[in-house]
Amino acid sequence: MLQSRLFAKTRKEELPGEMSAGTRLLLRAGFIDQTAAGIYAMLPLGLLVLQKIERIIAGKMDEAGAQRILLPALVPKKNWETTGRWNSFDVLYKVKSRQEAEYALGATHEEIAAPLVQKFARSYKDFPIAVYQIQTKFRDELRAKSGLLRGREFLMKDLYSFHIDQKDCDNYYEKIKQAYFEIFNAAGVGRAVHLTLADGGSFSKFSHEFQAATAAGEDTIYHCAACGFTVNREIKEDYPQCPECGGQNFSEEKAIEVGNIFKLGTKYSGPFSFEAAGQEGQNLPVLMNCYGIGLTRLMGTAAEISRDDAGLIWPENIAPFFAHLIVLEAKDGETDAKIRSAAGKIYEDLQKAGIGVLYDDRRQKSAGEKFGDADLIGIPRRVVVSTKTLKQDAVEVKNRGGKEATLIKVKEIDNFLKNENLG
Amino acid sequence: MLQSRLFAKTRKEELPGEMSAGTRLLLRAGFIDQTAAGIYAMLPLGLLVLQKIERIIAGKMDEAGAQRILLPALVPKKNWETTGRWNSFDVLYKVKSRQEAEYALGATHEEIAAPLVQKFARSYKDFPIAVYQIQTKFRDELRAKSGLLRGREFLMKDLYSFHIDQKDCDNYYEKIKQAYFEIFNAAGVGRAVHLTLADGGSFSKFSHEFQAATAAGEDTIYHCAACGFTVNREIKEDYPQCPECGGQNFSEEKAIEVGNIFKLGTKYSGPFSFEAAGQEGQNLPVLMNCYGIGLTRLMGTAAEISRDDAGLIWPENIAPFFAHLIVLEAKDGETDAKIRSAAGKIYEDLQKAGIGVLYDDRRQKSAGEKFGDADLIGIPRRVVVSTKTLKQDAVEVKNRGGKEATLIKVKEIDNFLKNENLG
Repeated sequence: MLQSRLFAKTRKEELPGEMSAGTRLLLRAGFIDQTAAGIYAMLPLGLLVLQKIERIIAGKMDEAGAQRILLPALVPKKNWETTGRWNSFDVLYKVKSRQEAEYALGATHEEIAAPLVQKFARSYKDFPIAVYQIQTKFRDELRAKSGLLRGREFLMKDLYSFHIDQKDCDNYYEKIKQAYFEIFNAAGVGRAVHLTLADGGSFSKFSHEFQAATAAGEDTIYHCAACGFTVNREIKEDYPQCPECGGQNFSEEKAIEVGNIFKLGTKYSGPFSFEAAGQEGQNLPVLMNCYGIGLTRLMGTAAEISRDDAGLIWPENIAPFFAHLIVLEAKDGETDAKIRSAAGKIYEDLQKAGIGVLYDDRRQKSAGEKFGDADLIGIPRRVVVSTKTLKQDAVEVKNRGGKEATLIKVKEIDNFLKNENLG
Repeated sequence: MLQSRLFAKTRKEELPGEMSAGTRLLLRAGFIDQTAAGIYAMLPLGLLVLQKIERIIAGKMDEAGAQRILLPALVPKKNWETTGRWNSFDVLYKVKSRQEAEYALGATHEEIAAPLVQKFARSYKDFPIAVYQIQTKFRDELRAKSGLLRGREFLMKDLYSFHIDQKDCDNYYEKIKQAYFEIFNAAGVGRAVHLTLADGGSFSKFSHEFQAATAAGEDTIYHCAACGFTVNREIKEDYPQCPECGGQNFSEEKAIEVGNIFKLGTKYSGPFSFEAAGQEGQNLPVLMNCYGIGLTRLMGTAAEISRDDAGLIWPENIAPFFAHLIVLEAKDGETDAKIRSAAGKIYEDLQKAGIGVLYDDRRQKSAGEKFGDADLIGIPRRVVVSTKTLKQDAVEVKNRGGKEATLIKVKEIDNFLKNENLG
């Protein structure tokens, strides 16, 4: 993509003081725009990150045998009444039509997933079933000041699995737990993520959360000093001793909940009378688990934990582009035309080689401005073409996190970048 | 995908009489499920179709230089008040938060797109700008009985372009008009689609609609017998004579509006005081166009116009799979194991070759049931493996629309299908 045509430019304006550092960078670098408190628009760079996160998550869900669907956001009142959450779930946005039909905007989708699967799964032979979607959720949060970390509207992957056997149910729970670690590792935030025992909220007694440690987090987690077991503050008082090793020393840390998984039992299948016919014709209760990952929140988390004073440092697999190509303007017109022509050719060649490139072709921008924007945007590697580098028939390649630049011959760029990609 | 694991099965139950034929087939074949009137869940097969439509549309938008973004569904009241549509746009679903913040669910996004682009585009040098999204829209429709053809919640591609020059604005309008024809052609519904002069509704005086002719349509269009000019019933009375050729003979047809494009002028940029600084520092009004295609509606349209009595007949580019592989159960166990093993290997090979396959591996289903389901689901080609075909070391390939089946040697299937794909 040509940076001169990218409509969402980097911004210098002052941002409200209460915003987290990652959010400020996402706003300043032009990844997102705030429409209202807790409500954000994804700009071209932000959407590219989100699409990469989506691909990672969808890939792991498919591998785990889950089938992708897409459920509506308008969830009829009667579905919520069936489970009792119409009145008890306080974050529901409620909507009434001109004809007095009532809905709540989907804050979660047990109320649709359970009766939907029920329509097709009547016999023990149909189980297990796992369905997932990547879809917009709505929650009427009282506080929404941390950018993408707690939004009123956000993109979520929600998976629902259905079982007629407790062991199968438990096994699938463990399988998805592992898939979640793989997702966070692939997205480049794995090192910060802790599996955390937590309260189940309106879903279940307990749940497991995946908490990414960072000072910007709204949650507080406690690590057992002896064995590393982690528990959320909500239920910490139930655990004066570590349930794993008996240790009593805990360290405290701020964290962002990037994923959560719940064993729902029959809590949401029961109210819909969702049962299966067993082998001997008996009625089997259907057990249900649910598993969530916030995609926008994961993007916000990456921005919090992977950055420096100059800007964002995107993890490889979720960066909007693989490389940031920059041409430095030359003072005299003839040299400038020559450099631009060389840079333009490199841009075409990289694109043909399947390498995603943001090309800073802007005119009347100093090297300082271009490098500053590149650091702010945080694409993993910067490729600079200038009078100086072209004298050596080369470009200068530098990793966003690194300090040293390397001169690479123009004809070797493709291969150099491709090998880096594989490495 | 293994059909035995596909959770959404074909259904035989009776469906309400007022549903269109295409909708009934989509429901019976397990592409969609009705959550409530006008509100549908996309099941695995339906989502695959939708994703293919999305890819076609996104590709054409990218080609046209539009930048993809993702705007929120919660559109603040003040944005609608600025344009005057809070009270005048009757399909808005309105939502109030616990803290009394008011929103309308995005039925269209001029109210966010204009002020968003305004934040970044201040100078004539920044124009033109075109941004698009593929996102869920909400409309409080009084009547919503035609399945995907008129939904209360639906997936839409909306593109907004911004210009400071009327000629540039008009040129881009023509460019997108062409892109729309290319999209409908690629999606396999092009032959039915007519460019139609129509009323602009709350958007503009006139608009152009892309109307797909089918008896299931809710709109009525009139074709000039002499020159083919088409006009929507809404404004037909303004055209007793054809404005193109003066002809007075019109034929009437039912149709579905699958796309529409509007020249908005300053109608939605003006209220936001969206102006650009010109070359001499003067203020230039910003002109805006908008362009919509309903993805779910396009899917519903394809189902209406491409089917027969036995089921759906998906156009090549939007079919959920390229081929439907079917193994016919043999009576004796040994032969059955042999056939299944051969079919399983073909399934693996086709997948490795990058050919999308639904594999009907179900047990205890007769040939009749399997062929019936295949016709209902409507994948473009059926590949049958049976005792009979394997005796000749072959499979039987038949196109969904066609009558004749062809025997193809097992080792030649890949190549045969690949060449078909190219042809």
